[in-house]
Amino acid sequence: MAYEFKATRRVEFSDTDMAGIVHYANFFRFMETAEHGFYRSLGFSVVMLETEPRLGWPRVHAACDYRKPLRFDDLVEIHLLVSAKKSKSLSYLFRFHKLGEKPEPVAVGALTIVCVVHGPDGTMSATPIPAAIADKIQVAPAKLLE
Amino acid sequence: MAYEFKATRRVEFSDTDMAGIVHYANFFRFMETAEHGFYRSLGFSVVMLETEPRLGWPRVHAACDYRKPLRFDDLVEIHLLVSAKKSKSLSYLFRFHKLGEKPEPVAVGALTIVCVVHGPDGTMSATPIPAAIADKIQVAPAKLLE
Amino acid sequence: MAYEFKATRRVEFSDTDMAGIVHYANFFRFMETAEHGFYRSLGFSVVMLETEPRLGWPRVHAACDYRKPLRFDDLVEIHLLVSAKKSKSLSYLFRFHKLGEKPEPVAVGALTIVCVVHGPDGTMSATPIPAAIADKIQVAPAKLLE
Amino acid sequence: MAYEFKATRRVEFSDTDMAGIVHYANFFRFMETAEHGFYRSLGFSVVMLETEPRLGWPRVHAACDYRKPLRFDDLVEIHLLVSAKKSKSLSYLFRFHKLGEKPEPVAVGALTIVCVVHGPDGTMSATPIPAAIADKIQVAPAKLLE
Repeated sequence: MAYEFKATRRVEFSDTDMAGIVHYANFFRFMETAEHGFYRSLGFSVVMLETEPRLGWPRVHAACDYRKPLRFDDLVEIHLLVSAKKSKSLSYLFRFHKLGEKPEPVAVGALTIVCVVHGPDGTMSATPIPAAIADKIQVAPAKLLE
Repeated sequence: MAYEFKATRRVEFSDTDMAGIVHYANFFRFMETAEHGFYRSLGFSVVMLETEPRLGWPRVHAACDYRKPLRFDDLVEIHLLVSAKKSKSLSYLFRFHKLGEKPEPVAVGALTIVCVVHGPDGTMSATPIPAAIADKIQVAPAKLLE
Repeated sequence: MAYEFKATRRVEFSDTDMAGIVHYANFFRFMETAEHGFYRSLGFSVVMLETEPRLGWPRVHAACDYRKPLRFDDLVEIHLLVSAKKSKSLSYLFRFHKLGEKPEPVAVGALTIVCVVHGPDGTMSATPIPAAIADKIQVAPAKLLE
Repeated sequence: MAYEFKATRRVEFSDTDMAGIVHYANFFRFMETAEHGFYRSLGFSVVMLETEPRLGWPRVHAACDYRKPLRFDDLVEIHLLVSAKKSKSLSYLFRFHKLGEKPEPVAVGALTIVCVVHGPDGTMSATPIPAAIADKIQVAPAKLLE
């Protein structure tokens, strides 16, 4: 059972805005990088084409607290921790750390996703997370989530 | 004194992802559209080149709760409301509504920005919001923020 | 039969990069804004869910020549002109003009799209543009394309 | 003297659009990943803060021919080749290859950048590429550019 994953990204020019720092919306793209890397590390993909009917993982809540800016060429580690696990949803905590000569915490993010099944009319309804997935994921120890 | 602003966007193809809906990070770009439109409606820009030293408005908190997906070509109204006003920071609430034949609430967002002054070494430190700006903005009536 | 369309966009903060100007990749998003507006003006959408099998319009060629930068808050007009029409493909020319006090040409873009049908295995093969669409589109007069 | 560089990216969810493939504008972000990696491999950054007056590298031409789509989780190699070198500009060719079980060419891109100096009024004028940079870069052998 896994409860964490670390992804590393180098900040690209197109991640920045005219303030010279990473645009705040891009932290949410970076969270997803870590989330999908977490699934890949467990041997499955967020895109599960084989499932019938097809499952989806829409986000129902996302948040980020920004402490320091990230700049072009910075290396950033995104540390994912499973913060909650329910029958139909998962919550993650993300700690962003700038690596390199002056390592420092940069931001803390949060994400809650729900497992849904797509109806023929395009609607989505929450459904229990398949056991093959749920059995591999557990909540991180409390001290790591403080 | 103003406490709200409404912006309207049409969802573009590049706003969507392979799930066929607007990528969740883009809701934060949409909030900024409304925020900057709010400033423009008050007669100033978030980019105040004339100030010396130059002011900035980094985001320190951002959040979004997603209720319904947005799809290509949807018209969405982003209703900004000032939810808090301090000497050095402003907080906004955003209500996303899909317009058209079947109008419905889509998401609720939140944003807190801080007024900073850029030091010569690239650092940023919080500073009181200039009166010319602060005097034009007030917190929305409580019933609108419920 | 139509051969042109004009879309207008205001440059947003998230369109810029740390050079303080619109990131060059975003001009291609702006071309698509005009392209899809063109289809909408003709009464159909690039997303034609009703078609069976489903059609797609992948891009096979895209180009842009940049003359002047676009900056935050600039209003830009994207003038689409149909530059070529074949049985299975369409080509567009785009002229970007900055509006406002100092109007000036900013960039010239080009796009070629192909009408494809999606096979059950995910492959795409070129197919003639449906008459309902092709009958509404013609190549722009030569002098407009010079 | 260097004339090539290879960068590898994994396609992320936010790179895709509702057609289920990488949005065509993102290929230009990927070209930049390889371009900036090329500079980094030569020991300098595209952001040269130390220069006075400050240099910039705006793009004056960009193009891409798309042959095959890229999908979520695909690993793509972007092979940069220097295709032209003038006193004030550089041109690059980019070959996109999908890696993995079924490797295949995906797209071919082109980019021309100009070295400029920023004037105090925000204007940019072309200037010779500094020798420290130009001396490290040469045009790729003709057979590699065919």
